Amino acid sequence: MFEITHQEKNSLARTGILHTEHGDIETPIFMPVGTQATVKTLDNEDLKKINTQIILGNTYHLHLRPGENLIAEFGGLHKFMGWDGPILTDSGGFQVFSLGLQKEAKGQGGLTKIDDDGVTFQSHIDGSTHRFTPEEAIKIQHKIGADIIMAFDECTPDDADEKYTRQALDRTHDWAERCIVEHKKNNCYHGYKQFLFGIIQGAGHKKLREESAKFISDLDFDGIAIGGESVGYNMEATKKILDWVNPIIPKDKPHYTMGVGHSPLDLFEVVERGVDMFDCVSPTRVARNGRLFVHPKIDKKMHINILNTEHRADKNPIDPTCTCFTCQNHSRSYLQHLFKSQEMLAYRLATIHNLHFLLNLMQGMRTAVKEDRFLELKKSWM
Amino acid sequence: MFEITHQEKNSLARTGILHTEHGDIETPIFMPVGTQATVKTLDNEDLKKINTQIILGNTYHLHLRPGENLIAEFGGLHKFMGWDGPILTDSGGFQVFSLGLQKEAKGQGGLTKIDDDGVTFQSHIDGSTHRFTPEEAIKIQHKIGADIIMAFDECTPDDADEKYTRQALDRTHDWAERCIVEHKKNNCYHGYKQFLFGIIQGAGHKKLREESAKFISDLDFDGIAIGGESVGYNMEATKKILDWVNPIIPKDKPHYTMGVGHSPLDLFEVVERGVDMFDCVSPTRVARNGRLFVHPKIDKKMHINILNTEHRADKNPIDPTCTCFTCQNHSRSYLQHLFKSQEMLAYRLATIHNLHFLLNLMQGMRTAVKEDRFLELKKSWM
Repeated sequence: MFEITHQEKNSLARTGILHTEHGDIETPIFMPVGTQATVKTLDNEDLKKINTQIILGNTYHLHLRPGENLIAEFGGLHKFMGWDGPILTDSGGFQVFSLGLQKEAKGQGGLTKIDDDGVTFQSHIDGSTHRFTPEEAIKIQHKIGADIIMAFDECTPDDADEKYTRQALDRTHDWAERCIVEHKKNNCYHGYKQFLFGIIQGAGHKKLREESAKFISDLDFDGIAIGGESVGYNMEATKKILDWVNPIIPKDKPHYTMGVGHSPLDLFEVVERGVDMFDCVSPTRVARNGRLFVHPKIDKKMHINILNTEHRADKNPIDPTCTCFTCQNHSRSYLQHLFKSQEMLAYRLATIHNLHFLLNLMQGMRTAVKEDRFLELKKSWM
Repeated sequence: MFEITHQEKNSLARTGILHTEHGDIETPIFMPVGTQATVKTLDNEDLKKINTQIILGNTYHLHLRPGENLIAEFGGLHKFMGWDGPILTDSGGFQVFSLGLQKEAKGQGGLTKIDDDGVTFQSHIDGSTHRFTPEEAIKIQHKIGADIIMAFDECTPDDADEKYTRQALDRTHDWAERCIVEHKKNNCYHGYKQFLFGIIQGAGHKKLREESAKFISDLDFDGIAIGGESVGYNMEATKKILDWVNPIIPKDKPHYTMGVGHSPLDLFEVVERGVDMFDCVSPTRVARNGRLFVHPKIDKKMHINILNTEHRADKNPIDPTCTCFTCQNHSRSYLQHLFKSQEMLAYRLATIHNLHFLLNLMQGMRTAVKEDRFLELKKSWM
């Protein structure tokens, strides 16, 4: 499914093509997150116009609402939501743990119970009890029908001690094998091939990360993901983990860091380390709070807060070098007015800009990699 | 500015063209409401795609936020919001009275004070005190720069007694004359002609409505509006008032009923009575609550509630005969999922549908009027 088209000379950065039934994906690529069968505020034409190549769906959310059986009745998520391009679904593992722990922290129950066979958890919508096992997570993802699906794993906290991380990692590895077995039974549920990626865990422990990289790499996965609570949220830890596992994971499979993309700069760091795919909910979430990306020449912080007084009467677009719909049609002043008035249009125009900005940056990175000047491009942004 | 292109044989219905600096408007026409410099949830391309010919802005809201001076800095509302088609602004009178009374009813102050010179009121945003006089309302509307602007009037409650209505009407008539004087001083503020419409008031009193129709008709207004608390909200009262004033108001000026469009059927009633323009916030507001218009052949009620259980797994569009973006791309089931998940996309897709539905119906009415079969079309919808 994966073809490397160019290996950069000066770094691990590479370009490639991921072939899926719903189209080819040029890598390295940022994947916008569409948690509940929609990338928040955008329609499918918006996604095409900003050159979205693949979107993410969340198994946890889609299982709870509208449910995988309804989606399957439609012939899968593509048809249900009307998006005919590639889709990736996570396994639900991250949400089961993170939303469960959030509820516990708030004293709202959230009785997430892990055992060696799977996880029992409560819905964040209505408190109802659900259970995911590796087999169940794969069955649900078959019904949802994404082009790329993920193994069910235990996402361990950063500060987990070695003893607990070892225990969780053994479970994750056992579950990885069970996911492969389940996947092989039915990997063309809707008549087209779905690809299964494994996930490397091991928190902040070098030995365990290396062991996990070896274990996951040796299994029959179509791609290799690097997961964990800190991946993406703590870029120093992320870089360290990537440097540990890179010598081990096979170069010919796509590499995916889960949760990377809080800042445009983060994308440079992972691409430099040979990562082909990444996703993050942050660019769309901060857009809805008025934090809008700009080129470092416009603002060194690489973003503006549209609600700042200085933009009140500013007739310029967010970023004069940007070709997105928002920057081509609207001023900072108008956007500030929409945000202050809490008009829904504000959130969509901001989302269009932030995603276009990142996807356009990825296009620039791919060109730079092909021309062996990726590090130069990176330097010009730092 | 107004050209009648056809007078129907069997009713007062007629077709016409309103010529403005920002384009021609084919009448009769429904005008979507864009209170705060945006038709809620939609962008300007959305508006063009559903064949919007003219949109409404609210002087009261735009005065409070972002303020007419900022809009004027941009060269008017068209440039500020990026909409290059025709715009109409109301005078703020309706909001000053209705929002003030709402605040008073809630015991939140809302000290709306009317005197013969104007109205002092408090902002619904921050409680600050503002004052509109006829002159001020016109000056603000000049700065906002809509193609059609409205005289400042006192919108009297339906149940106002004859004594109070007489007093308010005298004020409205005096203000109408003052608006004309002020308008003539500067009716090309941004370099293009703005047209001024007068408003007939008189609540539910036949004598006063007739008197008002005569008074407003005799002034040098470009168009004649019929206002009042009940107009649009109470269709029996609206029809009665139209029947009273129709023999009096000049046929060669455009007729505008303010606030009509709660139901598709209401549009038939006013078009039959020779009305050329109408606006209503309801079609977009109910869209955001999941109430979606359908042809009477689909549902006799002429709408569905997308949240009803029967639509849970329905693969059909809202209305299979509809050609809007929403109906061409999405099922009722997917829309229900978006509404249940409170995804913003739901509100935009629903708004696109409801407005497209009404604007498409208006196109059908115009064709029917031209072919002298308006009453037949009306019958087929009743």
